Amino acid sequence: MSASTNQPKNSLPLTNDELRLMNAYWRAANYLSVGQIYLKDNPLLERGLTLDDVKPRLLGHWGTTPGLNFLYVHWNRIIKARDLNLLYIIGPGHGGPGLVANSYLEGSYTEVYPHIERNSDGIKRLFRQFSWPYGIPSHVAPETPGSIHEGGELGYSLVHAYGAAFDNPDLVVACVVGDGEAETGPLATSWHGNKFLNPATDGAVLPILHLNGYKIANPTVLARIPQAELEALMRGYGYEPYTLEGHEPEEMHQKAAATFDKIFDRIAEIQHAARVKGVKERPAWPMLILRTPKGWTGPKVVDGKPVEDTWRSHQVPFSELREKPDHLRLLEEWMRGYKPEELFDAKGRLREEIAALAPKGRLRMGMSPHANGGMLLKPLTVPNFRNFAVPVEATKRGALEVESTRVLGRLLDKVLEANKEEKHFRIFGPDETASNRLGDLIPGAKKAWMAEELPVDENLSPAGRVMEVLSEHMCQGWLEGYLLTGRHGFFSC
Amino acid sequence: MSASTNQPKNSLPLTNDELRLMNAYWRAANYLSVGQIYLKDNPLLERGLTLDDVKPRLLGHWGTTPGLNFLYVHWNRIIKARDLNLLYIIGPGHGGPGLVANSYLEGSYTEVYPHIERNSDGIKRLFRQFSWPYGIPSHVAPETPGSIHEGGELGYSLVHAYGAAFDNPDLVVACVVGDGEAETGPLATSWHGNKFLNPATDGAVLPILHLNGYKIANPTVLARIPQAELEALMRGYGYEPYTLEGHEPEEMHQKAAATFDKIFDRIAEIQHAARVKGVKERPAWPMLILRTPKGWTGPKVVDGKPVEDTWRSHQVPFSELREKPDHLRLLEEWMRGYKPEELFDAKGRLREEIAALAPKGRLRMGMSPHANGGMLLKPLTVPNFRNFAVPVEATKRGALEVESTRVLGRLLDKVLEANKEEKHFRIFGPDETASNRLGDLIPGAKKAWMAEELPVDENLSPAGRVMEVLSEHMCQGWLEGYLLTGRHGFFSC
Repeated sequence: MSASTNQPKNSLPLTNDELRLMNAYWRAANYLSVGQIYLKDNPLLERGLTLDDVKPRLLGHWGTTPGLNFLYVHWNRIIKARDLNLLYIIGPGHGGPGLVANSYLEGSYTEVYPHIERNSDGIKRLFRQFSWPYGIPSHVAPETPGSIHEGGELGYSLVHAYGAAFDNPDLVVACVVGDGEAETGPLATSWHGNKFLNPATDGAVLPILHLNGYKIANPTVLARIPQAELEALMRGYGYEPYTLEGHEPEEMHQKAAATFDKIFDRIAEIQHAARVKGVKERPAWPMLILRTPKGWTGPKVVDGKPVEDTWRSHQVPFSELREKPDHLRLLEEWMRGYKPEELFDAKGRLREEIAALAPKGRLRMGMSPHANGGMLLKPLTVPNFRNFAVPVEATKRGALEVESTRVLGRLLDKVLEANKEEKHFRIFGPDETASNRLGDLIPGAKKAWMAEELPVDENLSPAGRVMEVLSEHMCQGWLEGYLLTGRHGFFSC
Repeated sequence: MSASTNQPKNSLPLTNDELRLMNAYWRAANYLSVGQIYLKDNPLLERGLTLDDVKPRLLGHWGTTPGLNFLYVHWNRIIKARDLNLLYIIGPGHGGPGLVANSYLEGSYTEVYPHIERNSDGIKRLFRQFSWPYGIPSHVAPETPGSIHEGGELGYSLVHAYGAAFDNPDLVVACVVGDGEAETGPLATSWHGNKFLNPATDGAVLPILHLNGYKIANPTVLARIPQAELEALMRGYGYEPYTLEGHEPEEMHQKAAATFDKIFDRIAEIQHAARVKGVKERPAWPMLILRTPKGWTGPKVVDGKPVEDTWRSHQVPFSELREKPDHLRLLEEWMRGYKPEELFDAKGRLREEIAALAPKGRLRMGMSPHANGGMLLKPLTVPNFRNFAVPVEATKRGALEVESTRVLGRLLDKVLEANKEEKHFRIFGPDETASNRLGDLIPGAKKAWMAEELPVDENLSPAGRVMEVLSEHMCQGWLEGYLLTGRHGFFSC
């Protein structure tokens, strides 16, 4: 392709080559996702599809998967362009096939599980193991490279994202919130995590509200309120909403690249303002409203009923392959539509120019050390607990009145002090640290607070180590995210 | 008072008499609230306060109470002016003394508990029983007249309110949401109940977000975000926010009366539009942002530290009456500040002109039959379950493949049909009615939906009897509110 034809049209962010390759990468991820759900053999469709190639029992969730894959491809671009540490948290964790496919494409999967080779045998094993006895779960699971958030744990994605971002100033946590999950209580309150995140010393959280419109059998609330109302909701939660909507792949790649360039510039600006210019105000962090069809690129109509862009895409968009011969044809057409022969070479290896889009080494999302906390964990310095013993004279048993948690508060105060430099220990609780008699730790540690302060307030600070909010869900979720990324915490309730 | 001096100034909504009497009623409720927390004798301060008059152990929550009492007085005005059935749900249910005080003042309490007479002996018993062995809890409790919502059950007030309003077209449920409680997950999502409420056939829910600024030991998130952000949040949740802010009693009474006149006019307009004009669109229901000081009218400073308008007012604003002699003086000054001699006659009865402000009979909130579901409960018509038996021939055991919940779905379909006229049975579940194999009930009953509909949707209707949202908290809370107001329901999950 000549230089002139490779120029972006109308100042579009992606060159024609970039666009072509990114779309190919996305097709490869989608192809491998469908393959995991349906196939046990003939992984690259080197011959016509027969019933013997199809799994006898079909399990898995297609609906959310292409959208998750689309984001993965775009994160790869952003990571490479900005040399970014990006942790990807998947609220709609039942889109497991997509995350497995992407960590396979970037090579992480094979490094962790060498028997899943990067060739057609490996792809066949990749397909077979999915939702299969002694194989892997259909959801994003602890064994999925790059994951700290279990699929199906609806409602906790955004609290996990905030927990991961605390004290990780160089990390960006991109968190997809499903529009079904967004109806849960824990998720609905977790947007307020931005009132506890310090842009100077914590990382960034980028929430993506993924509206594909349907849950299992119903439309979702947030997909069916007016756009202006939804944007007001996000501004009310303290975010600056960006919107990305569409279904035509090439147009969507260009729009996505432009939008993410803006969003990541904005994140950098916010962090620069807080870290260099000393701006103290809570910023309106960007968030993305992403509207794509449920089951995007999947079958449009099955048995006369619309499937793409409806709840019928939620799980397996069609089954009964043994009963209905045209379903086998439909599957083959669907999979061949991704043009696997353009994506994989004769040995089943992802073609080099496509594979080159993935970041290298630990910048690959599947290899993020933050998703594998044990790699980063440093021991917590704890003073000798014997120094906090309450002396009781043998002749005066029962004479002293002592509260055990008050003693614990003094111990924790010293733990906080001893780990001040490391910044890897926080206290979590639903507004009860003082009333649980742990108050002696508060003056030294302070309580994290990024909202308005008044003169009457005591011990609030953007740098506080005590996380108090009146939601056990948030406290618990923050703690989980903090621990799973290799730090230490204490939760009282 | 002559007619001329009794005219409202500058078209204020309350005449001078109304203002004076409403404020007196409020003072009486506040006085009785403080008395419950502190006193065991000398209930009307007929003599100087001594340590013998004070309870040995002080329990209860003052901070939220004066705000709850303020609303009660204004609901009384609205109820009388509009002949309204109003159910008052108290999210900050630890403000129990206020609700007990108000149901006592209106006479409900004595009708239910005749030993708490409407005289000074009764007031003494009212004070003593509070947080006392064999007495009453300090929170709004099942035994509090007019209550369906247990105090301390943080996060469920608004779902209970919606549950109570469904199929109760003549009921208005005024629901106070505390700003601490507002941080919980269940509450944060429950604002979306308006996407399931049909203005034509359901009652109205009026949420009051009561920002008094603090929880136990911290400021609250929603009190410390900019007003514009908070209003965006409420518009995003689909409400039309009104704001009422202040602390000067007379000014606040006038402003409140004006604001509530507007709000209740708006509710009437919405219902008229849906019921008479046939408007189908989901309305933006009014909600109120109420900003009043925590511990309003309580001690401003104790031991040199600010108390009113801080978290120090949350529970008992000061204790140590035995240790610090000026605390006893402080208590006496505080209570005498309400001028009990102007409120109660020599026998301890609320003065007639003040008592006349309360509604009569069942319009009193403490006597609302909706708060005592058993008074309204009609039996559910259930067809003979034997008609749904799956016939199994003795010789063909194990030959039939039948799903038990599918049979249950058919039974429930008939239950829904048999109770169509009564409108006292609903099905609740987190988007699982179909996947739990109960789907045969859906085509007849339809799924409740007041948000946007698309041609691809199936079985949605504003009049649907199946309540599906992806939040077990909401499903459970709606069901509780529905059952406690005397109806029947089924929850699958």
